[in-house]
Amino acid sequence: MALTTRLTRALGIAYPIISAPMAFAAGGRLAAAVSGAGALGLIGGGYGDKDWLEAEFRNAGNAAVGCGFITWSLKKQPQLLDAALAHKPRAIFLSFGDPETFARQVKDSGARLICQVQTRRDAERAIGCGADIVVAQGSEAGGHGEIRATMTLVPEVADLIAAKSPETLLCAAGGIADGRGLAAALMLGADGVLVGSRLWASHEANVSPRMHDAALAATGDDTVRSQVMDLARKLDWPHRYTARVLRNAFIERWHGREAELVAVADEEAAKYRQAWAEGDPEGSNTFIGEAAGLIHGIEPASVIIDRMVREAADRITGGARELVS
Amino acid sequence: MALTTRLTRALGIAYPIISAPMAFAAGGRLAAAVSGAGALGLIGGGYGDKDWLEAEFRNAGNAAVGCGFITWSLKKQPQLLDAALAHKPRAIFLSFGDPETFARQVKDSGARLICQVQTRRDAERAIGCGADIVVAQGSEAGGHGEIRATMTLVPEVADLIAAKSPETLLCAAGGIADGRGLAAALMLGADGVLVGSRLWASHEANVSPRMHDAALAATGDDTVRSQVMDLARKLDWPHRYTARVLRNAFIERWHGREAELVAVADEEAAKYRQAWAEGDPEGSNTFIGEAAGLIHGIEPASVIIDRMVREAADRITGGARELVS
Ligand SMILES: Cc1cc2nc3c(=O)[nH]c(=O)nc-3n(C[C@H](O)[C@H](O)[C@H](O)COP(=O)(O)O)c2cc1C
Ligand SMILES: Cc1cc2nc3c(=O)[nH]c(=O)nc-3n(C[C@H](O)[C@H](O)[C@H](O)COP(=O)(O)O)c2cc1C
Repeated sequence: MALTTRLTRALGIAYPIISAPMAFAAGGRLAAAVSGAGALGLIGGGYGDKDWLEAEFRNAGNAAVGCGFITWSLKKQPQLLDAALAHKPRAIFLSFGDPETFARQVKDSGARLICQVQTRRDAERAIGCGADIVVAQGSEAGGHGEIRATMTLVPEVADLIAAKSPETLLCAAGGIADGRGLAAALMLGADGVLVGSRLWASHEANVSPRMHDAALAATGDDTVRSQVMDLARKLDWPHRYTARVLRNAFIERWHGREAELVAVADEEAAKYRQAWAEGDPEGSNTFIGEAAGLIHGIEPASVIIDRMVREAADRITGGARELVS
Repeated sequence: MALTTRLTRALGIAYPIISAPMAFAAGGRLAAAVSGAGALGLIGGGYGDKDWLEAEFRNAGNAAVGCGFITWSLKKQPQLLDAALAHKPRAIFLSFGDPETFARQVKDSGARLICQVQTRRDAERAIGCGADIVVAQGSEAGGHGEIRATMTLVPEVADLIAAKSPETLLCAAGGIADGRGLAAALMLGADGVLVGSRLWASHEANVSPRMHDAALAATGDDTVRSQVMDLARKLDWPHRYTARVLRNAFIERWHGREAELVAVADEEAAKYRQAWAEGDPEGSNTFIGEAAGLIHGIEPASVIIDRMVREAADRITGGARELVS
């Protein structure tokens, strides 16, 4: 069963799926497994650590993968982009900040420029910077993001692209965890999808077993967007972004008490980082989206991707056969 | 072009679309136009006013329509349900509160019981109360709602229904304004959709021309969820619910300053109600969802519905033909 879109043709991949460059969780092993399964895998460059990055490119072996960066963070150590480009990645993915600083260098390198955006306004900016692929990310997504929803942001950006830059490709991100979500995204006008949470719940992701267990036990009602994890880690996230995580003891304690947390951040930062290092889902945070309610097992990435594509194709052909007359 | 689902068969309607019972905006004229176009139209009973309700049922004429109520508000004047049922409505729609109080009476009357829910937890409750149709409402919706997104809530509730009560029908609400949204909702597992904002922007809705103009000028980035309009109107909304409206002068002034607003609410309430009566989109609020960015004209309800169905059918058959092989 194949699912062919402008994205699969442009990238020369079998399936219109890109894995999210999830900080910490998406190393070379996950990226390689995703690319090996016929999609495009991305290493999550995250906040940027040269040694980690080199190790993960090694872990990806010869697989054709890309790499993502948190734009505002990359601006503090732009040499990481040179390091990534030295590995001839298929694509560089930028999110959370103005991509202009790096757009030229990425495009000149021959890598595709993927820009993840959270608003229509930022989509216009990404198109202006020459993005090859715009990823419209809804608020239901796991990890950092903003407040627009996938359901409206995707068609709105599709209209913008059709009017301003019809060659630009569009992916949907946020809440897509099975074939239903993939089929829905294609109906909304996307050329493909970016999948985070569902691939976080895979064998190849670097995730603590206790966090996996916490996610499997959760429904989609059990996540929340917050800033307390960034305050506790003393990360300089621009205020417009929050992160979606599971509700837990840490959230109960600090969400809504941000000023108090800042006052004791030195102490809390040490405790938080310790809990994170131990994979403790109560003392730190499990980063996952509302799609938690659609995830019922930790599986190999290839199984997840194959099923997602098969289900989406079935939904679409079944819909054409059974619903339309 | 027809689009047939379990919902159209169960209700004996041509198209799997229900119009939202929008307080103030959805009177008998809109409901009748929607039912006349082959969907199911609902009168928006809102906060409850007997004379208004009777007048709007008269305005609906002989059209087969239903009626919606805000559950917590209906509990204060339950006799309004008797008044509505006397008109033999096709359906009673309940949202924002536990439906148990009214479920038996609605079902005994022969009207379908439609329960709009904002979380998986509430969907379980609605099923337990015998809802014939569950409407899973995402946060992108216009008007009151909560924080889950349509993209994840719909498939999660679809799974719940499949496991617990396969006969129950499911509609998606929030962000559905064209054929792309309708097709996406069907892919997610819905049997149909509830459409608010897009039908608010119709000739038959009771909306001030200046508010219509404000909505046409907006993108999807320009809405926000807030509680200030309810504080200003001194309405007793349970705290979990906020309303999505256009950002405007009133929001700039009060959003984030809720305590101060409560302190001057008597004065503000009078000003707010005056501005609302004058249809002033800056002194009161324009209730609309993120779908504002997908709406580019005020049209007859029948034109909106016809195009939505045609586009959705085209997307689905086009997808089966062009994407899947
Ligand atoms: C654990 C986790 C970590 C993430 N880290 C990053 C990141 O470092 N950079 C980034 O651009 N996006 C990050 N994201 C967001 C993803 O890029 C993507 O938008 C999101 O996962 C899509 O929604 P979904 O989780 O519902 O699939 C992360 C998401 C998750 C779940
Ligand atoms: C102007 C307006 C008024 C609304 N009033 C009500 C209401 O009185 N009762 C209710 O249950 N829902 C109300 N809603 C929410 C709708 O039932 C529905 O969930 C929503 O419109 C769907 O999302 P959409 O606006 O993106 O189509 C209202 C929505 C709008 C736009």
